[in-house]
Amino acid sequence: MPINISYLLESRTACEREDAADPLRSWQGAFYLPQGLIYLDGNSLGPMPKKALEQLEQAIRKEWAEDLITSWNKAGWWELPETLGELIAPVVGAASGQVIVSDSTSLNLFKTVHAALTLRPERTVMISEADSFPTDLYILEGVTSTHQNIQRRLLGKDGNSLEELIDNQVAVVVFSHVNYRTGEILHIEELVQKTHDAGALFVLDTCHSAGVLPVELDQWGVDFAVGCTYKYLNGGPGSPAFIYVAKRHQNEAENPLSGWWGHARPFEFEENFHAAEGIRRFQTGTQPVLSLRGLQAGLEIAQEVDLQQVRKKSQRLTQLFIELIESGCRNYGVTLQSPTDHDKRGSQVTLHFENGFAVIQALIARKIIADFREPGSMRFGFAPLYLRYTDVWDAAEALADVLKTEEWREERFRQKHEVT
Amino acid sequence: MPINISYLLESRTACEREDAADPLRSWQGAFYLPQGLIYLDGNSLGPMPKKALEQLEQAIRKEWAEDLITSWNKAGWWELPETLGELIAPVVGAASGQVIVSDSTSLNLFKTVHAALTLRPERTVMISEADSFPTDLYILEGVTSTHQNIQRRLLGKDGNSLEELIDNQVAVVVFSHVNYRTGEILHIEELVQKTHDAGALFVLDTCHSAGVLPVELDQWGVDFAVGCTYKYLNGGPGSPAFIYVAKRHQNEAENPLSGWWGHARPFEFEENFHAAEGIRRFQTGTQPVLSLRGLQAGLEIAQEVDLQQVRKKSQRLTQLFIELIESGCRNYGVTLQSPTDHDKRGSQVTLHFENGFAVIQALIARKIIADFREPGSMRFGFAPLYLRYTDVWDAAEALADVLKTEEWREERFRQKHEVT
Repeated sequence: MPINISYLLESRTACEREDAADPLRSWQGAFYLPQGLIYLDGNSLGPMPKKALEQLEQAIRKEWAEDLITSWNKAGWWELPETLGELIAPVVGAASGQVIVSDSTSLNLFKTVHAALTLRPERTVMISEADSFPTDLYILEGVTSTHQNIQRRLLGKDGNSLEELIDNQVAVVVFSHVNYRTGEILHIEELVQKTHDAGALFVLDTCHSAGVLPVELDQWGVDFAVGCTYKYLNGGPGSPAFIYVAKRHQNEAENPLSGWWGHARPFEFEENFHAAEGIRRFQTGTQPVLSLRGLQAGLEIAQEVDLQQVRKKSQRLTQLFIELIESGCRNYGVTLQSPTDHDKRGSQVTLHFENGFAVIQALIARKIIADFREPGSMRFGFAPLYLRYTDVWDAAEALADVLKTEEWREERFRQKHEVT
Repeated sequence: MPINISYLLESRTACEREDAADPLRSWQGAFYLPQGLIYLDGNSLGPMPKKALEQLEQAIRKEWAEDLITSWNKAGWWELPETLGELIAPVVGAASGQVIVSDSTSLNLFKTVHAALTLRPERTVMISEADSFPTDLYILEGVTSTHQNIQRRLLGKDGNSLEELIDNQVAVVVFSHVNYRTGEILHIEELVQKTHDAGALFVLDTCHSAGVLPVELDQWGVDFAVGCTYKYLNGGPGSPAFIYVAKRHQNEAENPLSGWWGHARPFEFEENFHAAEGIRRFQTGTQPVLSLRGLQAGLEIAQEVDLQQVRKKSQRLTQLFIELIESGCRNYGVTLQSPTDHDKRGSQVTLHFENGFAVIQALIARKIIADFREPGSMRFGFAPLYLRYTDVWDAAEALADVLKTEEWREERFRQKHEVT
């Protein structure tokens, strides 16, 4: 069904009316948003939930400073990976006991791929997408250095499909739910089915979908998943990632990064490693408590929101942005890299422009924050919990102005820095 | 040379005078210490430096909340692993460019052992101590699951020595500088020499020495090291660990956990992994920024203190505690597990007592915090930057009283919880 937002194209006032009627508008107050800033980078680093400030203050001033070592029990530090995992589980369609927060996405991917390989010991091939977020590719390269007989096949490289690449040598297939560059959504249930038909296991990277799209890990039959908590889950800079292992695999799957936090009895200080039952075995070492404590508030919000409502608003925001750009920026060489079909589009819009880096810098100078990915991709993220239709209007207008005036040609906007 | 602290055994007043003359006494003011608490657990979780509170407030309220994604450049988030590594380097006797802060000790140990194995591809054996902190053992077990032809030999198990175990099949030897349970210090330079004589590589775990003992990684010829930042470096609960790779190995050693943070050009989003030059390649994924920001203040303190002075006071504090226990607790079945030779003793004293768990709980109820390790080890840590001679006096007196009155027999002290 097409999305009708054409009445919003008429005037900023129409967008104001839409904001006033937005069923999600009350969530805006749950976040700290700097005055005068339009933040279109929640797909990279979410803003601070107001409650996160309270919880961090508690963690620092009371738990660390006052209660010191006793907080491992008293404040539940030791169980944080599980406690936070349980908060994420319903957000990604997982029943209890299958999600844990720990380490980074890259490390969790290493764990899941290795675990999948040990569950399919007679098979020697991993499949992944050529245009996945590069760390996924790099981690699989690392796996081939520890498993010398394992090979990789890259999907999409010469237009090849999963059907063409998969066979009975394939142990594991890794896909991203949403492409980090274009925002394209894949039909995961279908890909899982094809993977299972060939007897292989499926790993899903949910970095660009968790918290903003309905994700149904259990229902889709996903075997393993990883995901990021600092984007749409608003967990704070570099907050630890999560890992999902389907119940049916937990007691056979092996975590190669077998540290004491994954031991069945970590405080017995036994000489040999005995993996904990269940999801706990996918932990390794001591976790960064302050970063974990900063994450809780974002997850509490994610628990409460209606993801269908979030998805609906996300589709309307991105559709509005695309249509405004089409009318306002048509003549400046900007092209759409994201799917036009709103059902295939995640919560971001990517525009290609050769000098996109400078354009993004010029927008940042106007207090409109988006980001840039080589080569030429300008990414605009639309997080429905705190963005307004008027923000979209203002951002599109500013972008058209930067392009029309060629403001981006100014020297100060063309100097490159690294931005994550 | 024997340590003369006998004049302190005479009275608490003598200890008060010693405190007044202590050249390190001004450092006490740099830490937040709860009123009325005697904290003998700095070997497990250091107290909060007052400056850490300021820096965390800055990181939360300004860098995350106000500046959002721009802080990756503006606040130097992206470089934190290197910036903090450079602060640690002089504390462990490493020249610049060899230390980075990242992930946990367990994960860093995995990286170093794998790197050592790739540098000695023709060799198939790893040696480690049977009574090292268990995660070191568990991680090596994990390495054998990814490298199927690699074996372990355990040192000290039947009283065997390094000389007996080492031969030309050994690729890597892992030792802890200070034993986590007894506090015994090993002579690292000698062990490195024996390891190198056999053509193997040496990995040092400095978790219980970094920040409290002089450590000379470069001078001793150590190849790789890992260490903890939340103990004597006072970095905050679960603050990320560090990894040292000697310059001579950096560009040949391979990090199997090859994520985008270890890539030569992480923002070019290339399809293939090209390891960064130097120590940066030992990173994997995105780091927990808030926990990193909480760590800086502790490292700034460690930079400024005179470690020889710290060591001297540490030896005097532990000697005083041991002598007070010997006179006050002689009749209650408590035995010393730590070396009597102060040159072989780290900054902790471990006493064995069958019901040690209950004794530690009784002390905690008296606001004297120490910890317990199975089986029967009561650990008392003496961090010289904030502990006073009078604290040692009071703690020893309380322990004697708990034992004498058998207060520990009370039911409330005998219920077990997990404590890290």
